[in-house]
Amino acid sequence: MERTWAISGTGAGADLHLDLSGPGGVRACLVRALRDAVRSGRLAPDTRLPASRTLATDLGIARNTVAEAYGELVAEGWLTARQGSGTRVARHPGPGAPERRSALPRSTPRPAHDLLSGSADVSAFPRAAWLAAARRALTAAPRDAFGHPDPRGRAELRAALADYLSRVRGVHADPERIVVCAGFTQGLALLSEVLRRRGTRELGVEEYGLWFHREVLDRHGLRTVPLTVDRHGARVGELTDHKDAGAVMLTPAHQFPTGVPLHPDRRAAVIDWAAREGGLVIEDDYDGEFRYDRQSVGSLQGLSPERVVYCGTASKSLAPGLRISWMVLPEHLVGDVLRLKSSGEWSSGTLDQLTLAELITGGAYDRHVRAMRLRYRKRRDRLVAALAEHAPHIRVSGIAAGLHVVLDLPEGTEQATLRAAAWQDLALEGLSRFRHEQFPADREGLVVGYGTPPDHAFPAALAALLRILPPAE
Amino acid sequence: MERTWAISGTGAGADLHLDLSGPGGVRACLVRALRDAVRSGRLAPDTRLPASRTLATDLGIARNTVAEAYGELVAEGWLTARQGSGTRVARHPGPGAPERRSALPRSTPRPAHDLLSGSADVSAFPRAAWLAAARRALTAAPRDAFGHPDPRGRAELRAALADYLSRVRGVHADPERIVVCAGFTQGLALLSEVLRRRGTRELGVEEYGLWFHREVLDRHGLRTVPLTVDRHGARVGELTDHKDAGAVMLTPAHQFPTGVPLHPDRRAAVIDWAAREGGLVIEDDYDGEFRYDRQSVGSLQGLSPERVVYCGTASKSLAPGLRISWMVLPEHLVGDVLRLKSSGEWSSGTLDQLTLAELITGGAYDRHVRAMRLRYRKRRDRLVAALAEHAPHIRVSGIAAGLHVVLDLPEGTEQATLRAAAWQDLALEGLSRFRHEQFPADREGLVVGYGTPPDHAFPAALAALLRILPPAE
Repeated sequence: MERTWAISGTGAGADLHLDLSGPGGVRACLVRALRDAVRSGRLAPDTRLPASRTLATDLGIARNTVAEAYGELVAEGWLTARQGSGTRVARHPGPGAPERRSALPRSTPRPAHDLLSGSADVSAFPRAAWLAAARRALTAAPRDAFGHPDPRGRAELRAALADYLSRVRGVHADPERIVVCAGFTQGLALLSEVLRRRGTRELGVEEYGLWFHREVLDRHGLRTVPLTVDRHGARVGELTDHKDAGAVMLTPAHQFPTGVPLHPDRRAAVIDWAAREGGLVIEDDYDGEFRYDRQSVGSLQGLSPERVVYCGTASKSLAPGLRISWMVLPEHLVGDVLRLKSSGEWSSGTLDQLTLAELITGGAYDRHVRAMRLRYRKRRDRLVAALAEHAPHIRVSGIAAGLHVVLDLPEGTEQATLRAAAWQDLALEGLSRFRHEQFPADREGLVVGYGTPPDHAFPAALAALLRILPPAE
Repeated sequence: MERTWAISGTGAGADLHLDLSGPGGVRACLVRALRDAVRSGRLAPDTRLPASRTLATDLGIARNTVAEAYGELVAEGWLTARQGSGTRVARHPGPGAPERRSALPRSTPRPAHDLLSGSADVSAFPRAAWLAAARRALTAAPRDAFGHPDPRGRAELRAALADYLSRVRGVHADPERIVVCAGFTQGLALLSEVLRRRGTRELGVEEYGLWFHREVLDRHGLRTVPLTVDRHGARVGELTDHKDAGAVMLTPAHQFPTGVPLHPDRRAAVIDWAAREGGLVIEDDYDGEFRYDRQSVGSLQGLSPERVVYCGTASKSLAPGLRISWMVLPEHLVGDVLRLKSSGEWSSGTLDQLTLAELITGGAYDRHVRAMRLRYRKRRDRLVAALAEHAPHIRVSGIAAGLHVVLDLPEGTEQATLRAAAWQDLALEGLSRFRHEQFPADREGLVVGYGTPPDHAFPAALAALLRILPPAE
């Protein structure tokens, strides 16, 4: 079924052909056709799409089919839907949640309510403390701080991190084995490249995780195999089904996004697996400083520093805009990672590193983390209490930790809930977005980044969230 | 011929086997065997090697052969040679000049005299102006400056650069087409990846250039084909011999390292080639602000913004430690580059970008460049005058521009001169290091980075340089 559909404002003249005869049914075809039209520019940014009723009549299909296709494309970020302005092509369309959202801040209007996960509350960035630390750091910096950077990162920062990580996260941290990167993803790219060169072809990942991490692994030639995530974290025993898996990437302290810690038995099991098979564990400790009910579980790396790469970041503790993260490497990886990193492709500036070192050694970093822990904890308590009162049928998944939470949704309601969120101009993502593409859909939910908005905007964001939740059955 | 050689302090016990029976003669075998021993750790860092006379006797070969092998490995960075301390395994050995040198600054002692190319005089970094700009920038920064960064870089910096590049380098610069990167090499990695995905397999490069640029191209699946460099720059006409070349990388304003500008006829010819073949020109304008005899030649990009990627950097104008560079892209490349960059693998921090934007718009950047231009010009004049007086047989190659110069050497003297430099603890590189591996050796010389040392250290470095030059024949 091929239809020609005339619309004003398309990129390439007035007519757009939509082929609805492909596999997967009319709705899937429509989604694909519209996505391709946006991607190729045939549908220009900001173009207003016809009302679902109009397009349905034009194409001779059910109105609901069009509405659902629109909703899916809104959720994917290709279209936007706002009350009063209808459905439009997004200004900078394309897949990719946390990165996409913030990709073009000047051009993409900020949503009214932002509960996307993956960011600290950056309105609380300690500007004065940062500037004071920058002044001390720059004044004291030796000349070589301005020269070609050490691929490991500045020695000052590595020394400060070694002390901090050992104290706070139980990491076995020698400054000589720390490599500073411009974010976890960059570190993952370096590790992937080194692992592939050493012959690794397959890497275990958690069934739920960030799609752009899997994309980086894929680009560097590693196949990802998903491990089931249950209430004890990833079923690491499944690694034995994947004889080619030379490494596994985990979020042991607080599974992302489902929010459970890795069970002690499984922590031991994955270390055993690594020792037995010569495998490597990549520990993504993205929010290890933020636990509210008890002391955080220490790092997995502390158990087996020669088998685990510990990865931490300033994106949650301070701000993603800094682009500072760190890896603590097994000794046998240090040389290869540094050789690769010294090519200059993956380098990062040294001045912010010096400032962060000063912030840590001067105590301001600890103070900031403590203040933010209190702030996030209060928000989570408030969210949990509001749900108990207004939506007691919605379960909050995971432990009291971190900057986000998963709300479990009844089967078949996630997409509709996301459409409702789009209409409220509430930015957040569905759990299905995080699921490995090879894994069957087994649960639905919302990933709520309660740490993202500024304090003053949180109550309204919470109210918007409550409005979109499906009613009790 | 396999010999066992006992030496204390090797990595793996006391005995080292050197197989001298391979191809290429005894000297080449010895170089290879020693390099492998260092690379594998069998010869531990800082191990003192036997005197060349001793090893020659042990192995039953000529003393000169050992001395030459040592010299070669010193030049490559595997060994160090200092008066009084003999020949030792380098602390952090490995190939790769500017990056290698600075790779591990804490562990590698700074050379007495540093004339390596590739860096500004970082002792002149404008710390006070930078801090003042940082204060203004951080105070004024909107909240989103701390959030997930725009893969294009901060809008403030792109606007400042668009204005600056158009004014100073004649670049056709729209902020929407500028992408901020963490150094030229990172931008090159992004471009390579995009070009390869679009089907490019081969890329023309100048016969002389930076080996780690070629390495990045190679890693991203692009074969490099060398173009002859003569006194008019790269012979771009040779591109017609390479039908598969979809792009070419050039340093039109000031060929690196030979120092000549690209002839106007060749500028026109390469633009013609690009238009005719649908090719892309990557313009590496690494030191375009520094010309002393006249106004700099404007950018090639200004001639054909849809066929040329303009690449600039703050590494020469301010400091390599900042890791800030910029590309101005043809419109057809913007989307693909940003999609790749938004994965987070190649991101860079935003705070320094805001500060640099403030430095440019406030005028302090121009003032710094003017002051440095005067400083470098004086050094170059002094170098040229000293050579005219003390070594009139040594020709200075290239125009009065930039932060480095090539000194032509008589045939067969480059390696010996580098050995002499190592004995003086003078860090600099031979021209042959920059030659494309497929290109026949056609000239010898020294690449002298007179811009690198601080002002107070320049006279002593210049004196050391004069001491190592080969005498007139």
